[in-house]
Amino acid sequence: MGSPWYFVALLLTILTSSQGILTSLSQSDEGGYKYDYATVPFLAEVLKLIISGLFLWRETKTSSSSSSSATAKITKDWKSVRLFVIPSIIYLIHNNVQFATLTFVDTSTYQIMGNLKIVTTALLFRLFLKRKLSNLQWMAIGLLAVGTTTSQIKGCGEASCDSLFTAPIQGYLLGILSAALSALAGVYTEFLMKRNNDSLYWQNLQLYTFGSLFNVARLIADDFRLGFEKGLWWQRIFDGYSITTWLVVLNLGSTGLLVSWLMKYADNIVKVYSTSMAMLLTMVASIYLFSFKPTVQLFLGIIICIMSLHMYFAPPQTLVDLPVTHEAHHKTLKQVIVEEKTDS
Amino acid sequence: MGSPWYFVALLLTILTSSQGILTSLSQSDEGGYKYDYATVPFLAEVLKLIISGLFLWRETKTSSSSSSSATAKITKDWKSVRLFVIPSIIYLIHNNVQFATLTFVDTSTYQIMGNLKIVTTALLFRLFLKRKLSNLQWMAIGLLAVGTTTSQIKGCGEASCDSLFTAPIQGYLLGILSAALSALAGVYTEFLMKRNNDSLYWQNLQLYTFGSLFNVARLIADDFRLGFEKGLWWQRIFDGYSITTWLVVLNLGSTGLLVSWLMKYADNIVKVYSTSMAMLLTMVASIYLFSFKPTVQLFLGIIICIMSLHMYFAPPQTLVDLPVTHEAHHKTLKQVIVEEKTDS
Repeated sequence: MGSPWYFVALLLTILTSSQGILTSLSQSDEGGYKYDYATVPFLAEVLKLIISGLFLWRETKTSSSSSSSATAKITKDWKSVRLFVIPSIIYLIHNNVQFATLTFVDTSTYQIMGNLKIVTTALLFRLFLKRKLSNLQWMAIGLLAVGTTTSQIKGCGEASCDSLFTAPIQGYLLGILSAALSALAGVYTEFLMKRNNDSLYWQNLQLYTFGSLFNVARLIADDFRLGFEKGLWWQRIFDGYSITTWLVVLNLGSTGLLVSWLMKYADNIVKVYSTSMAMLLTMVASIYLFSFKPTVQLFLGIIICIMSLHMYFAPPQTLVDLPVTHEAHHKTLKQVIVEEKTDS
Repeated sequence: MGSPWYFVALLLTILTSSQGILTSLSQSDEGGYKYDYATVPFLAEVLKLIISGLFLWRETKTSSSSSSSATAKITKDWKSVRLFVIPSIIYLIHNNVQFATLTFVDTSTYQIMGNLKIVTTALLFRLFLKRKLSNLQWMAIGLLAVGTTTSQIKGCGEASCDSLFTAPIQGYLLGILSAALSALAGVYTEFLMKRNNDSLYWQNLQLYTFGSLFNVARLIADDFRLGFEKGLWWQRIFDGYSITTWLVVLNLGSTGLLVSWLMKYADNIVKVYSTSMAMLLTMVASIYLFSFKPTVQLFLGIIICIMSLHMYFAPPQTLVDLPVTHEAHHKTLKQVIVEEKTDS
């Protein structure tokens, strides 16, 4: 992992944060969307597909002209390709579970439960990818979830005051399922990207082809659901698009490509930290952009998350002093020396 | 530190927590006190003085009858005795600063700022007592302050909604001074208790004699301030005392004795953790006793403080894996063996 993953993670944080802000700016003054929001992820998938295709083409071209050592590795076996449909299937199920959850709980409870994703990702990361975390790293993960939740506590004197913990039990169970599915999609994608050393662009091409197909299917399903009263999806795809809407598409496509890169060269935990920090960054930016009132809970949440980040990523020896190990080390040395002398 | 300090710390947590509850229960139904609250700390000081005196008497009696090795050590030098007045002086200044602070900030801001005491104690503990903390322990201290603050965030829909960060700057400066003085008193007491191996009861006797004198002085000052309209302090000392008021006195005396013990055999950080945990315990108990509404922030605060406790006190090697050190260790071993062989 000599790659500059922290730079990619920082870029992902900034772009994920601007995603929220751009989406707000793309809304009309009354708060709704002038365009069909479902077309945005579809266009972002297509954009990612085109970019990955171009990069793959450049890669195969340069590798065929130069020495064979740098050949872009491509596994075209259907047994391998078909695995790339699984993330799309998981996201499809996830979207439906998300929809079902929201029929039981209010949006602020749903938002709070969304922080569970941090913990479920770490659990599946441990279980499926067999990656071991130290106790301190587990605590850091827990703290990250606590920190993001703290920043979301409804402030004193806020307009709507939905009480938490009052929804039916199904709501909470579906919320947990939703967090587990979202984590599963991430962990499975990491597995796909790392299972062989295929070219990243080839892996992306497969991922985004299925992604685009599933998004088209969703638009067609919407057409049927509305009884074609708004026409066919390709007739209304750019309706109401402003320059900001295009920026939203461009931004969503870019974050997708960065996440893919992180899945191959870093891991899901790095992604989780990026998106959590992005949420806090969006809240801070909203204070300036949308005159949001700064709260104590946001300030506390930021401190908690930064501490969590440091606990997780800082080299352990910079965090703790281990005089005991040091002493044991010296003792062992002496013992070995004595043994060696006795032998010779 | 082979002493069972964690048991004493646990007892202190429980008693400090019941102090808040008993004080609430000792109030009249209208919310005020039927008795003069200033008499409570005075009686608690006298109680601690009597108990310490009795223990010292027993200690000197047994040590004089048995072998000289167990003699209670007593330094009667005035140069040593006079140092024990300093905590009382610091508390006197602290009380006045506290009073001044409250003329600038509201009580909820004052309560939030009280958490600064956790950080100032750790800083003075490092500076004056030269005790080193690992980076992880510093983070744990920061998290403890963040955790207790989180639990105190005003809930959504709470009656009074004082806005923080709106008091004049003097208020915050005095709040910081107040936290620093409170920490200084604690750290100075620890210095006093540990500077020699005098009997704990003899040290207590000196501490509480000055404590009782300063408390009497306070009661006399109150008499003058009120123009003796309520009579002299010893005429009204037990006025309005109920069984609960006596329990408050007994409880305050006991916590004082436990704190003294911890200052000698453990340290200020242990005390800070005890009192912080006690605050959370009081809030949880209030849910059952006074039908307080449980909040998400209390739940999050408890998780943060428990994590902080674990980070501070758990043996470092149980928190982190240090494979690098292990490898370095093996390498060093081989090198030494080679060197040893070359030598012989």
